[in-house]
Amino acid sequence: MSILIKGVLLNDAVKDVYIEKNEIRHIGTDLQVQADQVIDGKRKALIPGFVNAHTHAAMTLFRGFGDDMALMPWLEQKIWPNEDKLTYEDMYWGTKLACLEMIKSGTTTFSDMYHQYEATADAVEEMGMRALVAGACFDGFNLKLAERCKRENEKLMAEVVGNYSDRIRYAAGPHAIYTVSGELLKWIHSFTAEHDAPVHLHLAETEGEVQDSVKKFGLTPVRYLNKLGVLSPRLIIAHGIYVDDDEIRMLADHDVKVVHNPASNMKLASGIRFKFCEMRKAGVTVALGTDGCSSSNNLDMVEAMKLASLLGKAWRKDPEAIPAGEIFKAATEAGASAIGLKAGRIAEGYLADLCLVDLNIPAFIPNHNFVSNLVYAANGSCIDTVICDGKILMQDKKVPGEEEIMERTAELAYKLVKES
Amino acid sequence: MSILIKGVLLNDAVKDVYIEKNEIRHIGTDLQVQADQVIDGKRKALIPGFVNAHTHAAMTLFRGFGDDMALMPWLEQKIWPNEDKLTYEDMYWGTKLACLEMIKSGTTTFSDMYHQYEATADAVEEMGMRALVAGACFDGFNLKLAERCKRENEKLMAEVVGNYSDRIRYAAGPHAIYTVSGELLKWIHSFTAEHDAPVHLHLAETEGEVQDSVKKFGLTPVRYLNKLGVLSPRLIIAHGIYVDDDEIRMLADHDVKVVHNPASNMKLASGIRFKFCEMRKAGVTVALGTDGCSSSNNLDMVEAMKLASLLGKAWRKDPEAIPAGEIFKAATEAGASAIGLKAGRIAEGYLADLCLVDLNIPAFIPNHNFVSNLVYAANGSCIDTVICDGKILMQDKKVPGEEEIMERTAELAYKLVKES
Repeated sequence: MSILIKGVLLNDAVKDVYIEKNEIRHIGTDLQVQADQVIDGKRKALIPGFVNAHTHAAMTLFRGFGDDMALMPWLEQKIWPNEDKLTYEDMYWGTKLACLEMIKSGTTTFSDMYHQYEATADAVEEMGMRALVAGACFDGFNLKLAERCKRENEKLMAEVVGNYSDRIRYAAGPHAIYTVSGELLKWIHSFTAEHDAPVHLHLAETEGEVQDSVKKFGLTPVRYLNKLGVLSPRLIIAHGIYVDDDEIRMLADHDVKVVHNPASNMKLASGIRFKFCEMRKAGVTVALGTDGCSSSNNLDMVEAMKLASLLGKAWRKDPEAIPAGEIFKAATEAGASAIGLKAGRIAEGYLADLCLVDLNIPAFIPNHNFVSNLVYAANGSCIDTVICDGKILMQDKKVPGEEEIMERTAELAYKLVKES
Repeated sequence: MSILIKGVLLNDAVKDVYIEKNEIRHIGTDLQVQADQVIDGKRKALIPGFVNAHTHAAMTLFRGFGDDMALMPWLEQKIWPNEDKLTYEDMYWGTKLACLEMIKSGTTTFSDMYHQYEATADAVEEMGMRALVAGACFDGFNLKLAERCKRENEKLMAEVVGNYSDRIRYAAGPHAIYTVSGELLKWIHSFTAEHDAPVHLHLAETEGEVQDSVKKFGLTPVRYLNKLGVLSPRLIIAHGIYVDDDEIRMLADHDVKVVHNPASNMKLASGIRFKFCEMRKAGVTVALGTDGCSSSNNLDMVEAMKLASLLGKAWRKDPEAIPAGEIFKAATEAGASAIGLKAGRIAEGYLADLCLVDLNIPAFIPNHNFVSNLVYAANGSCIDTVICDGKILMQDKKVPGEEEIMERTAELAYKLVKES
């Protein structure tokens, strides 16, 4: 299987790009090579597929269900009672809808944390994307539940993870320090070290979390993890808003990855002062995410880039902060690096996870600066073609089977909520 | 000329809507009426066209030209030298591109302030939209220039304004209190009172402006205008970030209209604490705008709604603030009211300025709450059909002539910038 993309805009020059199997093999001008499929790149630009580094895919089911509410009433009245009822079918179709939405807006890889590992993995497998799938675990500081979480992760590793292609990888998913005991966090750290697997954790998302952490553990969230000895290059923390300079240093020293989720942080009013510049300066890998659809309320990484840059400029009172090129890297290269993929760049030897951007829309007219137009003027609807793992998932803005996915998921979502 | 929209989602019910000439005539179920054109509303929702209440349309020419820069170097190095060179042709095509972009994202009316009144008005006339067109005026506290501005406005009123259809209306456009003398502001107030015309002014946009105002006039911006006696229901101020409680009361007492521009305020780091809730509580009409493409960098009112709501929630630390329905009203009804149009609502007797939203995209799946999906999940690409003044401007996401507009404007923009 090979693909030749002819005459596409790539970093201000017109190039041909040849893909063989799942890799970018050659980039050049007027390449003389036979390929199974040829894509005309005229009036299109080539970018790496986005990496949505923090989401809860199947929460598409709850899109728009309980907005403009405070966090706790929303969780208690709207989300938790319904999450308890989620079947394999709900999760599978909810994830398929999420994949459809992500493909349509140029995301090729996502890092997920939710329930029912197999339903998520099955959906991703069929949709052709890449995902780091973490089964959320909670023990509520209860020893029995902690044991159950351990057995579940052992079982996933022994019996489930190997059933999928290498587009789908396992992570442990301890939910947060206020729902998971230190004992279980330490066990997860050792277990994943053995298997060289990532750990995906919510951390330092709200002021309340920090206050509770200090009250309960005598330490702020990052210091608490440091004391537990679970900071590592395999740890991916979502949010990380409330961290001070010393904590940023700890994150950098242990090469912990941080995922910024601007839409969710704004909509839930969690906090706006995400320290993107300070973390980058300290050498922390900062990726970008949308969070789940019930708090963001979409999975559009192009929008996430604009929000992150604008929010950063706004609270810092600095229009020069977080320029377009830097947030574009966070959404691509840094995300891939956080997840441990050789992707997120268009270079020979990298994974063929790519998108063609339609330049024939007002957002790219004029095209004085492509990356600026992508980040500040466009939205996810500019994506025309998506290639993941060397296979075409979308062409001419159409994904095969999209009608069925939308119909089935809508039906299941209405049923779920009606019964609540 | 009549249009019948059959079976469209309108406020949670399926309705038929009959348009005759430029008005909504009947809304009902299964209307038995003949129409020149019939639009199938299946899997679509009907909303009022958006009112972009503050922009500089032809700045599309400078989209992406000088981002991530501080305000003054950006203006001095990038914008002002190029604005001086703008020809009629540049302005005309730049405005056409803006109209195209606005139509594609569901805006039917905009309030503009820029140079070369006729180039803007000609473009709007041909594109079929509505606009309140203000010729920007600056006197730089120079009496001679003030006289020139007066003569220009008199000439516009006497010789130009009457040449256009009633879709295009005149406003005076004094740029700001730091570029226009109090004497000229007072003259504009009287002149426009005579002609019952609006006045479109930048005000209280930055902390620097407030400090300068206090230094120069001994008063904060709104107090200064109050002292000049130019606050009136015809005054539309763009930005209005730096206002205290007493100033909000002055704005309410004089029924001054305020336009919030969240993208521009964030990107230029002008300020984030726009007092939407306080102004609404005091009874101020608050509309929504995108500002010009060189600071926002698009003209997408759907995105502007999400930004305004999320930013308001974020700085207030209140997830319940500015719910979706409220910001939707700001972007439609309040905008129409600010400009003095019987539009922005779907009701019998209102202007037929309408959009059909494509519900067959992931942003509206599931559709637990249409307005939430529109504000928080969608972007301008959800707009399928646009009707303005009873005429169809876009159907199936295509605007007649869009290719030529994009090509011509791109050429002119490159030429403009190349020569700089």
